[in-house]
Amino acid sequence: MENKKRPLILVSNDDGYRARGVHYLTKLLSGFADVVAVCPEGPQSGKSMALTVNEPLRITPLDSYKVEEPGVEWYTVNGTPVDCVKVSMHSILKDRRPDMVCTGINHGSNAAINVLYSGTMGAAFEGAAFDLPSIGFSLCDHSPEADFAPMMPYVEKIVRTVMEKGLPAGVALNVNAPKSENIKGMKQTVECKGHWSDEYKEYIDPYGRPFYWLSGTFVNEEPENPDTDQALLDAGYISIVPCGINRTYSGISENYFGD
Amino acid sequence: MENKKRPLILVSNDDGYRARGVHYLTKLLSGFADVVAVCPEGPQSGKSMALTVNEPLRITPLDSYKVEEPGVEWYTVNGTPVDCVKVSMHSILKDRRPDMVCTGINHGSNAAINVLYSGTMGAAFEGAAFDLPSIGFSLCDHSPEADFAPMMPYVEKIVRTVMEKGLPAGVALNVNAPKSENIKGMKQTVECKGHWSDEYKEYIDPYGRPFYWLSGTFVNEEPENPDTDQALLDAGYISIVPCGINRTYSGISENYFGD
Repeated sequence: MENKKRPLILVSNDDGYRARGVHYLTKLLSGFADVVAVCPEGPQSGKSMALTVNEPLRITPLDSYKVEEPGVEWYTVNGTPVDCVKVSMHSILKDRRPDMVCTGINHGSNAAINVLYSGTMGAAFEGAAFDLPSIGFSLCDHSPEADFAPMMPYVEKIVRTVMEKGLPAGVALNVNAPKSENIKGMKQTVECKGHWSDEYKEYIDPYGRPFYWLSGTFVNEEPENPDTDQALLDAGYISIVPCGINRTYSGISENYFGD
Repeated sequence: MENKKRPLILVSNDDGYRARGVHYLTKLLSGFADVVAVCPEGPQSGKSMALTVNEPLRITPLDSYKVEEPGVEWYTVNGTPVDCVKVSMHSILKDRRPDMVCTGINHGSNAAINVLYSGTMGAAFEGAAFDLPSIGFSLCDHSPEADFAPMMPYVEKIVRTVMEKGLPAGVALNVNAPKSENIKGMKQTVECKGHWSDEYKEYIDPYGRPFYWLSGTFVNEEPENPDTDQALLDAGYISIVPCGINRTYSGISENYFGD
């Protein structure tokens, strides 16, 4: 006889409720947890921790026929990934605090500097701001038809480990998986130093005015270092980077602003 | 005879180019530096490090009569604060790398956990991602008619100090000033632990459906600690928190995910 209460997991993402990745996640989690999924109505990639200040938010239940997952409560929000977490904690989850927040699975890498801009990680950081163990998952494949199957056993192992061991308050995990049918394993690591170059594609509109569209190529600034998230992904491993939401940098001398 | 080249400072904000705070900043800086100001076309508060992925961006010169600051080059961008920094670095600043990025002065506090959501700090962090010494300035007064005058001598001292001493790569300063005519001084400190409670005001629309609008009250979780940004602001001081853009948290055991 199993008397243990099933944990409650809040799921969100930044690709919107129609994206394939979040359904891989909810399907897996609903096998061993109650799942409340609250996702943006449409794509919210690159939204970081943006929140909606100047407009009202709605939280709308999705009829189950729209998403065939009877074990999952589904909602959408007309806002950002952070809005999804905030407004659901305030409303539908007010009287049932989740045990964990899982976000993604993102279509595309959130390794290295991408973590700053990622809406998937934004929602995970918001979970951490609520002092909930939080994990953001991403697959290095932007395709809407991306194959999430190879990473799912690792996702389950990571979720179960965090459920058992917990995480320090204010810490979320940034988990990225390579696009590979033969993932070699998973490793805890650190964010790779790097930047995007040639970030915009330039165009001229029909009236002669320039406009710009975000694009670019990631440049690894420490390619010789095998112990970064980017290097592990390139080598076929899943990378796990613990990330803190406290921004304070303690390396500046106390006398820096002294007289 | 003064042969020293004037430094070049990129200015942005999240309240948009019409906001009073950014004009206090550009006016001060143009006294000793060349200033290129690139601000959102309208309010972009709470945009964090969001960037525009799914739409094109334009960068538009403002005619000088619209903003009477002949010493400042003024542009607007139809995007977020981070977009302003990124697209101007790619275009109008491509061949003249700025010496520094200054953002704000924000109308409203970006102390404590607000740093996560702030568009003003988002733009400063983007400056830090370009390895430029970067500072975000905020005044704890949301009013469009806020009085920025009392903080300006401190803003100048902080900018001149950073110009002289530099900052480590990937570090930006989060500077907040109290709403006070008699600021007591300025101090380097750390981010206060806290959260927002009662975050949403609830309404019912004319058709009986609920909607939510972001609101809330900041709760200081360490009120006994005098050495946080929030405590210093409450005591009448300007707070300076150095913030790192690298998210890696190193406090998780290597064996956490071990077999």
